[in-house]
Amino acid sequence: MEFEFDFFVQHNDINLYYATKFRAIDLAFYIVGNDGTDLLLVPDMEKERAIRESRVREIASFGDLGYHDLRREFRNSRKAQAEMLIRLLKTHKAKVVGIPTNFPAYLALPLSQAFDVKVVKSPFLKMRMVKSAEEIEYIRDTSRAIISAFEFALKLLKRERSCDRIRDRIENYLYLRGYLATDTIVSSGKTSAIPHASGGIIEDHVVIDIFPKSRKHYYYSDFTRTVLIEKNDKIEDMLRAVIEAQEKAISIIREGITARDVHYTVCDVLESYGYKTLRQKAKEGFIHSTGHGVGLEIHEDPRIFENEEVLKAGMVFTVEPGLYYKDVGGVRVEDVVVVRKNGCEVLTEYPKMVRL
Amino acid sequence: MEFEFDFFVQHNDINLYYATKFRAIDLAFYIVGNDGTDLLLVPDMEKERAIRESRVREIASFGDLGYHDLRREFRNSRKAQAEMLIRLLKTHKAKVVGIPTNFPAYLALPLSQAFDVKVVKSPFLKMRMVKSAEEIEYIRDTSRAIISAFEFALKLLKRERSCDRIRDRIENYLYLRGYLATDTIVSSGKTSAIPHASGGIIEDHVVIDIFPKSRKHYYYSDFTRTVLIEKNDKIEDMLRAVIEAQEKAISIIREGITARDVHYTVCDVLESYGYKTLRQKAKEGFIHSTGHGVGLEIHEDPRIFENEEVLKAGMVFTVEPGLYYKDVGGVRVEDVVVVRKNGCEVLTEYPKMVRL
Repeated sequence: MEFEFDFFVQHNDINLYYATKFRAIDLAFYIVGNDGTDLLLVPDMEKERAIRESRVREIASFGDLGYHDLRREFRNSRKAQAEMLIRLLKTHKAKVVGIPTNFPAYLALPLSQAFDVKVVKSPFLKMRMVKSAEEIEYIRDTSRAIISAFEFALKLLKRERSCDRIRDRIENYLYLRGYLATDTIVSSGKTSAIPHASGGIIEDHVVIDIFPKSRKHYYYSDFTRTVLIEKNDKIEDMLRAVIEAQEKAISIIREGITARDVHYTVCDVLESYGYKTLRQKAKEGFIHSTGHGVGLEIHEDPRIFENEEVLKAGMVFTVEPGLYYKDVGGVRVEDVVVVRKNGCEVLTEYPKMVRL
Repeated sequence: MEFEFDFFVQHNDINLYYATKFRAIDLAFYIVGNDGTDLLLVPDMEKERAIRESRVREIASFGDLGYHDLRREFRNSRKAQAEMLIRLLKTHKAKVVGIPTNFPAYLALPLSQAFDVKVVKSPFLKMRMVKSAEEIEYIRDTSRAIISAFEFALKLLKRERSCDRIRDRIENYLYLRGYLATDTIVSSGKTSAIPHASGGIIEDHVVIDIFPKSRKHYYYSDFTRTVLIEKNDKIEDMLRAVIEAQEKAISIIREGITARDVHYTVCDVLESYGYKTLRQKAKEGFIHSTGHGVGLEIHEDPRIFENEEVLKAGMVFTVEPGLYYKDVGGVRVEDVVVVRKNGCEVLTEYPKMVRL
């Protein structure tokens, strides 16, 4: 491996699924090493299923590595797990051991006493940034389901005044079609000035932000539109500026530019209309980043903010400028794009300006 | 505090929600200290919502603590977060800092260089073991929904032969009633010999294991029945032994006995019929623990295994013996109980022997 470590230990999170295709229930470890180690380590009762489902060839159970004796010896399952990993890595003569940033502390600290431990972004997290053609089709599939659910919500808006009930109907609609949406945002009036708030009664405009994952292939997509209902000049001006900022940002996205280029394009447009941004340390206005990667997690790399990450073809992320003012309310417009060599493709194609 | 540390830092997981009633989206920290510190620390854009929704009185944003300057200084958001926490704790003259076992490594290692860090089971995890009357009603509510979904599944079994389709129908049924079930198990024939496997065609018997959470109050429950469909003496004998083991175990549960007492009662009954158990290092037979706590997570403390955890009134957990043989298949019977002073109450009351 071309890494700053000779072994890497991935614990059970979505990266373990990405790397092994095994959906572990509780604890599991995937260990790769520069001596050719490529091992999936699972609880005894999961070994059969791991052999069936994972794409890793070498599979061992905790019992195979003497875990049960260690647990009896230490009378502590956490210490026994740490010791099991340490002994395994020592057998392989590991010196520098990489662990992911979110690796659990009860294992990280003992490992750091036994090895030169490097806490790094999981290499799988980096691999996940650039999507395969198959992954892009999965995200496209979820995007289509969202657009269909949004059109369903527009029909509901003609007779339903409760944001919570509209949210429930959207989530039910998606669930019955094979998608799981949680924390869907349907917010109106001044409540919409809080980006993640939801609920209340439909007033002058409504922000609808839908981000389900497929229950079949597990890939997310993410989409927001602001629907204008009653005349509100301030909201309409804000929305026009946000749409212009988003379209300008999308127009510059292609392989080779940086995340910051995209974010600053959004800031430039919004600031040109006199709105404040986080770049100016504003507390109101454009108070979040421009976007985030989307895939097996709803928020993943690349982050589209002030960072200088260079965009590569196949990266998939949101472009979602918004403006938020306590005394007025909030607006946001969000699409998911795939970076291509000479531009980008929008996976959530839908008109930006929506009036009821 | 009566702990082995003078400060405790809880990061965003379900314990943070339990302790603060704030549903954080990404990063958040809840910090308690023996100098009276009781602080919820959230990203800037979440501060308003945290003030509205959490029950913590002191709320600060990352920005309030100088995070943005630190991020610019280190050009690394992870280092900036660690430094923000270290400076905050130093301001409070913290010496011994407790962190939960699953605290992320990228913060745990820098903290361990600045303080005497103790990696402990989150004190909130311990508090969560004993449920309030309100929490028990939530779990009872989810239990009722499960029983209703199971009765719906029994009707489906009369005409539907695909385990996957039955599982989808169960999950849809629950979703439309406000409960989210994932990884529901519907397995038949020899597939059922793998405890967490699902799918295939309905054969001689079917194991149905349903464990949804409420989408309103977020509490789980967990229930399994083995339904006999065609004559299979081996399966029927296994099921009789499992039911006897489960009933015997439930009959001894009361405040003051240990988890091990419950687990060994199950093992004793199963072994008396000649079945093997994990206590005998068996690879087939009763190859998992007797149960696990149920609440805001599907698997939480107390674990009902060989551990000597003393049961307290208000603890809620599963009692779920099973037997698994590759050449025959598997059976399992599972209920959720609440420990009372002089016995226990079953929240998932339903006949144990079910024939189609």
